[in-house]
Amino acid sequence: MTEIPKDHPRYAALMVRDRLTEAMWAKLVAPEGLIAQGRGEAFDYLLGEQTTESAARAELAAAAMLLSAERPVISVNGNTAALCAHQLAALQEASGAAVEVNLFHRTEERMAKITALLEEHGVAVLTGTSERLIPLSHDRALCLPEGIGGADLVLVPLEDGDRCEALRRMGKKVITIDLNPLSRTAQTATLAVIDEVTRAVPAITTACRTLSDDEVRALAADVDNRVFLEEALRTMARRLEEVADALE
Amino acid sequence: MTEIPKDHPRYAALMVRDRLTEAMWAKLVAPEGLIAQGRGEAFDYLLGEQTTESAARAELAAAAMLLSAERPVISVNGNTAALCAHQLAALQEASGAAVEVNLFHRTEERMAKITALLEEHGVAVLTGTSERLIPLSHDRALCLPEGIGGADLVLVPLEDGDRCEALRRMGKKVITIDLNPLSRTAQTATLAVIDEVTRAVPAITTACRTLSDDEVRALAADVDNRVFLEEALRTMARRLEEVADALE
Repeated sequence: MTEIPKDHPRYAALMVRDRLTEAMWAKLVAPEGLIAQGRGEAFDYLLGEQTTESAARAELAAAAMLLSAERPVISVNGNTAALCAHQLAALQEASGAAVEVNLFHRTEERMAKITALLEEHGVAVLTGTSERLIPLSHDRALCLPEGIGGADLVLVPLEDGDRCEALRRMGKKVITIDLNPLSRTAQTATLAVIDEVTRAVPAITTACRTLSDDEVRALAADVDNRVFLEEALRTMARRLEEVADALE
Repeated sequence: MTEIPKDHPRYAALMVRDRLTEAMWAKLVAPEGLIAQGRGEAFDYLLGEQTTESAARAELAAAAMLLSAERPVISVNGNTAALCAHQLAALQEASGAAVEVNLFHRTEERMAKITALLEEHGVAVLTGTSERLIPLSHDRALCLPEGIGGADLVLVPLEDGDRCEALRRMGKKVITIDLNPLSRTAQTATLAVIDEVTRAVPAITTACRTLSDDEVRALAADVDNRVFLEEALRTMARRLEEVADALE
């Protein structure tokens, strides 16, 4: 791993990049995962690489939805595991959600490696026999009947648009963590947290630990994803306009 | 390589992605190159994945600058070679520019592989003994005295900000092809072509072949990078605002 000085102004972003590259060589992350990371970085740059006030509210809403769900499941892919395995045990403990490994580029080798990484970090990972329960072709339909298959709410950080839509068609609530407010995932989710995943996961964990029952009820009853999408889009547009104005 | 049907609406974008992934496994492209590709994709999405009218004008200006230069050099890195080796011979022929391989993540293995790929596609690649001529630390200072070292103009598609600044400090004109109008590269270049590289290179080639001497003189004398940057930034902001408006 490259040595990055801790006082480097972009330390967090560079560490994230380094961790993903290492995970790709270790076959945890697919090459497409690095390209997806880059897309996220561009949008994060437009947000100022920080959690916006709007995203912080979305994180409270995400916590409230998790705590209100009957059978919440966190769906973990390669990028999520590589970036925040160390943060997921705390989210699992605080939210009471089950954790299932679910991959777009699915191989048994990657399933096993990601499961092992999560377990090393204290995450209890669901196991069992996957069935084709998601209305998608090929192996993308696979999930566990006692996991995503039976969940009423799925938190899917860094998900692809197809699967997010398919889960919605199954009648499930979907929370996604996605920096791209234009993505089909963000647009079709019940709630899109437009924030970087290693900032979003601990924020949702803290909210799970601190919200009162009344707050949970009130927040979970009043989620309007369009408001969060619109705020993120306008924040990004404003940033571009500001840079353009400065050129004049 | 994955089979992508030619009538897929995003065929070009998916092919680009596939070509880069293959090039990474072949060690031509560094993993950081995939992340950089993803960042570019996000900005390209905001441009509608097409050459804007403003970018088309920048491509005419780029051709005029290349044709007006005394010793123009095209600096090629791993991503550029992987994506448009097949387009560079024509640009070299039309512009009269020399081609030098110049890498951020430099290894002799990558230098040799990229040179071989370019030569396979009919590009004449400069060879010789590199010297530390660019005001940067370590191997990033290396270039050929008879290439970038002696050039009055360098076309550097997909360059990093440090090196673009360093080349400018050496008194050279720099044309970059970069989808991110916020990048230091785009901001410090003499001219930034804010377009996807496989669209930009053939457009510049065509312009080299068709511009008259008078048009070359007029275009090369009147390059204001701030105009191109501002137009790209406002196009992207408008796209975000349009999506936000549609949510209301």
